[in-house]
Amino acid sequence: MCELLGMSANVPTDICFSFSGLLERGGNTGPHRDGWGITFYEGKGCRTFKDPLPSCESEIAKLVRAYPIKSCSVISHIRQGNRGRTCLENTHPFTRELWGREITYAHNGQLSDYQDLKPEFYRPVGNTDSELAFCWLLDKVREKYPSKPSNMLAVFRYIAKLAHHLREKGVFNMLLTDGVYVLAYCTNNLHWITRKAPFGKATLIDADLIVDFQKETTPHDVVTIIATRPLTKDEHWHKMESGESVIFKLGEIQ
Amino acid sequence: MCELLGMSANVPTDICFSFSGLLERGGNTGPHRDGWGITFYEGKGCRTFKDPLPSCESEIAKLVRAYPIKSCSVISHIRQGNRGRTCLENTHPFTRELWGREITYAHNGQLSDYQDLKPEFYRPVGNTDSELAFCWLLDKVREKYPSKPSNMLAVFRYIAKLAHHLREKGVFNMLLTDGVYVLAYCTNNLHWITRKAPFGKATLIDADLIVDFQKETTPHDVVTIIATRPLTKDEHWHKMESGESVIFKLGEIQ
Repeated sequence: MCELLGMSANVPTDICFSFSGLLERGGNTGPHRDGWGITFYEGKGCRTFKDPLPSCESEIAKLVRAYPIKSCSVISHIRQGNRGRTCLENTHPFTRELWGREITYAHNGQLSDYQDLKPEFYRPVGNTDSELAFCWLLDKVREKYPSKPSNMLAVFRYIAKLAHHLREKGVFNMLLTDGVYVLAYCTNNLHWITRKAPFGKATLIDADLIVDFQKETTPHDVVTIIATRPLTKDEHWHKMESGESVIFKLGEIQ
Repeated sequence: MCELLGMSANVPTDICFSFSGLLERGGNTGPHRDGWGITFYEGKGCRTFKDPLPSCESEIAKLVRAYPIKSCSVISHIRQGNRGRTCLENTHPFTRELWGREITYAHNGQLSDYQDLKPEFYRPVGNTDSELAFCWLLDKVREKYPSKPSNMLAVFRYIAKLAHHLREKGVFNMLLTDGVYVLAYCTNNLHWITRKAPFGKATLIDADLIVDFQKETTPHDVVTIIATRPLTKDEHWHKMESGESVIFKLGEIQ
């Protein structure tokens, strides 16, 4: 399987601390050696760093861990491939443009009987079930909303509804964002935590690293982290239910 | 204006030498301080590194210069903005998926009277004339070829024909690739050079750097570099004519 990491924040925030924990699972404390990727939104634009190499050995991962890119919406993924070989085009996250907005997505799980997913407008570049499901989701959204609706929250609710159909085909945990909203959809393994004042300290599970959020934040900051498994050992993470979706904006549940 | 850099090669080759020269023009030997980007194809996949910071100051550019990513098709761009502010979404290259292929493009120049360019399938995320022109090109290609044709060379010839329409609107120098073919289209400033055996030495114009290609290559390598202005001072670069297009595949003219 794979591991997901996402962030939604009300001020541009770096994800170096959480990403450091995730990276360890990419070949050190976890078996996810088949590539990794991370997408940062800055304004309407986004940029993705990805590598088919294990994250614990990747030069590019070292840069991303050390260089604090500040963003309000981030999606990251480390891969342990099942469907589709290890190569750049099969490396998450995937991004497509819809109505002049960049939509980014990453998936954890495995689908079966997905032959009925036949997207026409968006086509997968690689051969993973994950990218096929993403293209299908976007096709459905484009069909329902040929032009950009004013109510983007309704679009995200519709995507969560579509995700139920994918969950019927296997394990479908996913993160999806347009840079403003971040949707988390759970089949069996997804957790989240919202950090806000009063901030405390947290200790990573996978690396010897403690952060004192009080030193890194202002009293108005709200930062939500979403992850397949909790990344810290001294905080309370919410475990999502099967079929549950949560939509965040600026760190808060919508 | 901006500067373009492209590569087409018959074996995966790193572009570190040429990129080192280009980067200097991003704030040191040239005025192109409004961001930079580079897209590498590896198989069907591609990855882009981009930064709205000047390339001569960018931590990410330092990584790309030092870390040899090997690719057969590369497009890079450093920006001196005219239309559209300096921000991530206005930073070239731009990539869109068409028929399950990643198409990447960068533009040098400035267009006027482009109000008649009204793409519908593909929409710009930022507000540059460049990205608008790219979306228009892809819309036209999609209109003519609703599904992927077997003859991709014909598609690239069609794109070169469409580019004449854009040249009527101002300065339109561009590079466009699907990872296999690399198209160079010139209005007023584009040069290329093909390096093959017997290889010699070359000296960068913008940095104190000499490379002996004989030590870096095999006798079968063919590597074409395309650039706004020649990057080396001791080699003969072909200057393209206004309205001329050249299509490369595996380093060779098609």
